[in-house]
Amino acid sequence: MKIAILPGDGIGPEIVEQAVNVLNALGEKFELESAPVGGAGYAAHGHPLPEGTLKLAKEADAILFGAVGDWQYDTLERSLRPEQAILGLRKHLGLFANLRPAILYPELANASTLKPEVVSGLDILIIRELTGDIYFGQPRGVRTAPDGAFKGEREGFDTMRYAESEIRRIAHVAFQAAQKRGKRLTSVDKANVLETFQFWKDIVTDVHKEYPDVALDHMYVDNAAMQLVRAPKKFDVIVTGNMFGDILSDQAAMLTGSIGMLPSASLDASNKGLYEPSHGSAPDIAGKGIANPLATILSAAMMLRFSLNKAEQADRIDNAVKKVLAQGLRTADIYEAGTTKVGTGEMGAAVVKAL
Amino acid sequence: MKIAILPGDGIGPEIVEQAVNVLNALGEKFELESAPVGGAGYAAHGHPLPEGTLKLAKEADAILFGAVGDWQYDTLERSLRPEQAILGLRKHLGLFANLRPAILYPELANASTLKPEVVSGLDILIIRELTGDIYFGQPRGVRTAPDGAFKGEREGFDTMRYAESEIRRIAHVAFQAAQKRGKRLTSVDKANVLETFQFWKDIVTDVHKEYPDVALDHMYVDNAAMQLVRAPKKFDVIVTGNMFGDILSDQAAMLTGSIGMLPSASLDASNKGLYEPSHGSAPDIAGKGIANPLATILSAAMMLRFSLNKAEQADRIDNAVKKVLAQGLRTADIYEAGTTKVGTGEMGAAVVKAL
Ligand SMILES: CC(C)[C@H](C(=O)O)[C@@H](O)C(=O)O
Ligand SMILES: CC(C)[C@H](C(=O)O)[C@@H](O)C(=O)O
Repeated sequence: MKIAILPGDGIGPEIVEQAVNVLNALGEKFELESAPVGGAGYAAHGHPLPEGTLKLAKEADAILFGAVGDWQYDTLERSLRPEQAILGLRKHLGLFANLRPAILYPELANASTLKPEVVSGLDILIIRELTGDIYFGQPRGVRTAPDGAFKGEREGFDTMRYAESEIRRIAHVAFQAAQKRGKRLTSVDKANVLETFQFWKDIVTDVHKEYPDVALDHMYVDNAAMQLVRAPKKFDVIVTGNMFGDILSDQAAMLTGSIGMLPSASLDASNKGLYEPSHGSAPDIAGKGIANPLATILSAAMMLRFSLNKAEQADRIDNAVKKVLAQGLRTADIYEAGTTKVGTGEMGAAVVKAL
Repeated sequence: MKIAILPGDGIGPEIVEQAVNVLNALGEKFELESAPVGGAGYAAHGHPLPEGTLKLAKEADAILFGAVGDWQYDTLERSLRPEQAILGLRKHLGLFANLRPAILYPELANASTLKPEVVSGLDILIIRELTGDIYFGQPRGVRTAPDGAFKGEREGFDTMRYAESEIRRIAHVAFQAAQKRGKRLTSVDKANVLETFQFWKDIVTDVHKEYPDVALDHMYVDNAAMQLVRAPKKFDVIVTGNMFGDILSDQAAMLTGSIGMLPSASLDASNKGLYEPSHGSAPDIAGKGIANPLATILSAAMMLRFSLNKAEQADRIDNAVKKVLAQGLRTADIYEAGTTKVGTGEMGAAVVKAL
């Protein structure tokens, strides 16, 4: 089994290194091959998603991704900026299903800015459609307004689009995920304003007929943003479009106060996937050896579970992470009095030891 | 001065009644005229925004709005549903600037699901553009996909658009509001993905040249949703588009835990405005006399300040509301042990008395 290792920028390389150590400690035979991506891709080959990197990602059975972005690339024109790599990988590999768990580990309940009773035991799964919506819809650009109240003026514009089969396939992923969990699915839309999301709601409602054991409800995105603050534990699985999912999955992650713990998976139709921590490249702490590698290590576990069909090994990693938390080991981002502060490498080594 | 009173549905009529009592107690000469809107408009005239109601709203110097929406209208076709009234009023009256304060009264700090130290003293102002963006952009609808990977399939689509002058005018409102407060403005966009919001960012940056005393920063919408959870007090004024503003303003309101306290204003280019509570029509508690009228009463105060040029009277109302809170009076939504639970009418009467 071939795994593409794309460390990226900022803290990417150091956290991915720890996840690779964990993978290597499992006693399995993986072929690991690395390539530069994001700012590192631009630095090496003049493009955030170099041809060789894309080729490797396509050939591999799964991709372990660190993070991209660094200040020095902020002034590049948009098509060369690091985040284009992640958009390009999603689109070229058809990674339409983004699974973003928001889980609050009991040991880390204090890390949240929310009251413990509101978030302790939080365990929700956000499923974000990842290759459609206004992220990729054509036409888009800056033009002279062809009509409307501002006809003749310069305007920026984008197109939100969802085709029926795009909605159906993400709905199936969501209903099936709900079946394996609490059997409740909330589809988030803005059907009261957007044609795209009235259509979305209609199709999700239709797909629901195939999953009578799952309770489906529909919620407007503004209300969802409120309910995530008011009573996040009421949710089980949330499914939504690319744009709303971008916002809500980050909001939900931050509810836990420990975004350094949250993995994510982006899957294609045959469960090939890209796995990455939910947090960013944090260039301000890069190279200091203090970043939390656990989200990346847990992403490797998700990879074993979803793409490599090695659920037992995934469980081993998940349990090892729980063990190091129970031992009181904490990186700086989740440190509190009474626990033991460790660096990136120590944390990774502790997980390897706990395996 | 003529004020259009549009009570609407659910708890709308009972909370607006209290705000009208407060207005009448100020000793000013206002001409108040009521008209049905939302579900009530549909029930009376077959349309959520009846012609007579729109005419009244256009003639008036300001509009006091309750809330719209009730279950019985949920099955109507979209163009007849209650929320079309509010979209129609915004568009027909050109109410492009939505001011949504998120303030946490010290007495209500416990109402929040966030830890007191994270939210106590919260005082941020979200300025949401209200007549552009994907809310109104043409073309939109359900069609056969004309191109792309799903060509030939049925798809839903909408158009996000912002013209230069639309962005300029809301930016001016935002910079001027920031000048009167903490002199810090955060413009929220998604310039890394959307052409519309790269354009938005460029124009806001340009308008900034006229306001050198205001510190401007730019933040992606997903990050803004995180920072509102992590450290909401770091914000002063936020300006964003219609769609992102819908989500973030509701999220910010919920941070306070007391959305029954939050007013809002929607202004046109000459400061004529529509004023309404930030909460909805709550049909589940309608008619029970337990709804919190304070957000509507505070909306009336905003109306006096922004549209009727009566800042002193606005201050009187704001102070009266503070007084009743200090007296320990609470409606059910903000009640906690040790305070006195009162109904809608009692709360309104207490504000009148405190004036
Ligand atoms: C970097 C950016 C393009 C990306 C997105 O908006 O999808 C990021 O926010 C994410 O959620 O992975
Ligand atoms: C009712 C709905 C159309 C409206 C909106 O999305 O603008 C509401 O959510 C609001 O924020 O006033």
